Amino acid sequence: MPSEVEQVTGAAANTSLNARATSQTNVSRFQGDQAHSAIDTLAVEEPLELQLAFGPSASRQIKSISVTMRTPGHDFELAAGFLLTEGIVNDAADITAVRYVAGSTNEARSPHADAEATVLPYQPERNVVRVDLAPDVTVSMANLERNFYTTSSCGICGKASLLALRTVCPPRSANTFEVAASTIYALPDQLRAAQDVFERTGGLHASGLFDSAGRLQSIREDVGRHNAVDKLIGSAFLEDRTPLRHHLLLLSGRASFELLQKALMGGIQMVLAVGAPSSLAVQVAREFDITLIGFLRKDHFNVYNGAERILTEPLK
Amino acid sequence: MPSEVEQVTGAAANTSLNARATSQTNVSRFQGDQAHSAIDTLAVEEPLELQLAFGPSASRQIKSISVTMRTPGHDFELAAGFLLTEGIVNDAADITAVRYVAGSTNEARSPHADAEATVLPYQPERNVVRVDLAPDVTVSMANLERNFYTTSSCGICGKASLLALRTVCPPRSANTFEVAASTIYALPDQLRAAQDVFERTGGLHASGLFDSAGRLQSIREDVGRHNAVDKLIGSAFLEDRTPLRHHLLLLSGRASFELLQKALMGGIQMVLAVGAPSSLAVQVAREFDITLIGFLRKDHFNVYNGAERILTEPLK
Repeated sequence: MPSEVEQVTGAAANTSLNARATSQTNVSRFQGDQAHSAIDTLAVEEPLELQLAFGPSASRQIKSISVTMRTPGHDFELAAGFLLTEGIVNDAADITAVRYVAGSTNEARSPHADAEATVLPYQPERNVVRVDLAPDVTVSMANLERNFYTTSSCGICGKASLLALRTVCPPRSANTFEVAASTIYALPDQLRAAQDVFERTGGLHASGLFDSAGRLQSIREDVGRHNAVDKLIGSAFLEDRTPLRHHLLLLSGRASFELLQKALMGGIQMVLAVGAPSSLAVQVAREFDITLIGFLRKDHFNVYNGAERILTEPLK
Repeated sequence: MPSEVEQVTGAAANTSLNARATSQTNVSRFQGDQAHSAIDTLAVEEPLELQLAFGPSASRQIKSISVTMRTPGHDFELAAGFLLTEGIVNDAADITAVRYVAGSTNEARSPHADAEATVLPYQPERNVVRVDLAPDVTVSMANLERNFYTTSSCGICGKASLLALRTVCPPRSANTFEVAASTIYALPDQLRAAQDVFERTGGLHASGLFDSAGRLQSIREDVGRHNAVDKLIGSAFLEDRTPLRHHLLLLSGRASFELLQKALMGGIQMVLAVGAPSSLAVQVAREFDITLIGFLRKDHFNVYNGAERILTEPLK
């Protein structure tokens, strides 16, 4: 992990959120035809701009490569995770620093910079993150360009999606990651118990990394499910613990193409969703032999790929 | 509505989905330690590329402006709705045609075009939509560029978000759109009853337009909640029925910044969500005086803005 990252992530690295993750507001609470004032806790949603600094010192470039609406907290992990799961960086040693910077480099997105301060309560010094790459790291401009098209429910887009994944995904050996069914049934309760904010706001997606014995290793929450996964994978990436071949990923909601893509890029071999998978999520799971479980409940679930790796007790 | 649009949207315009919206797959269904084979219905997720053809005939340009992962069906509405809600087009008369075209114009996204056919089961002829604008329509390149940054859970991004909305949103008069609380409580059941696919797949977001008496006018479903809203608003836009000042928008899930942005751009003055709103959704609602309701249930809900426009029976 680069030293400049460590200073900021150290203390808060094992909690899923930070103080800026929620805010309180006055609401009128209606019950039948009666209304009364109440205080409601909201999940915070704010834009995060990700900048990449790369190239040899003689021709160093700084590019704004994405903006996502996210819940503040673990922003450095989010940045690192995004770079990994979108195929822009694949070695943690390539990252020399991750830091907040003062302003956007992209004037096109800030046409009214002078007037901003009067409109928004943001803390802009915490909404732009710059990742510095080592001078000798080559950045694929094609991958950067592609990110201008990726959307947060979209991932690698276009007709070449699956083929592009095959090109950029890390080398994979045969999937031999097995988990007992009895272990799987216990996962959602653990995730829910560890969620800091959902119970208060109802507004956050959670994702958790577990080992094969079903022990929760880490959890992240965000208004965007893709961000929760990027934070989780980015946390491991910054500590040089990817690919995550011996972990399973639990999603509090549905499983889309993009989330399977991110799991794949993180080297994760088993993905479980409390909600439904999409058709393309199933296709990615089968194409790359990721075990995929959906509709996970206390006593039943569906396996869309890799059922042979779910261990059950033999009938007696 | 342009004649080329009408031919395709006519028949299916009042159903929320089409035949390609779901697909079936084999799964292993585990109950306790027992597994058996079953058939599961999936919500289909496929990429849709949106191209814009614009400019005078002497210098006509075709640009690929977005790719989104969506559930097939109502693609022309999705395209038109996206153009409206992202501030690229604001008059339906500017659109002269909407059609499917054969291929992507963007080689950067299809680096392996030759091999695609062997990998993907897509129907590529139904995954690229081109919108033709009249030759005299001026397209803001800044708005187009901005869309390279918008993500599907993101909307207008960056620090200037709210200010940019103020610049591009349609002229608004004072919000006088009132609805009875008793009407509001009845909305979610109506939406659920009208959802074609959710009960089968558990995998789709729905959004519905209702009038002030609580009558359902139209409903759209999609794997992406932003797409469901774009299809709904796009349907009205293509028929020149925007701004939708006399309708309320019901969302089956949570309310994010982006969904409020889209409602605002469609002229909608009341948004109701079954789930939680984010902090920035509340901020947009207050900044632009949209009535915003969250956590809508059969007998209670929270009002984040505009409680004075919820009509209740006087106490007797």
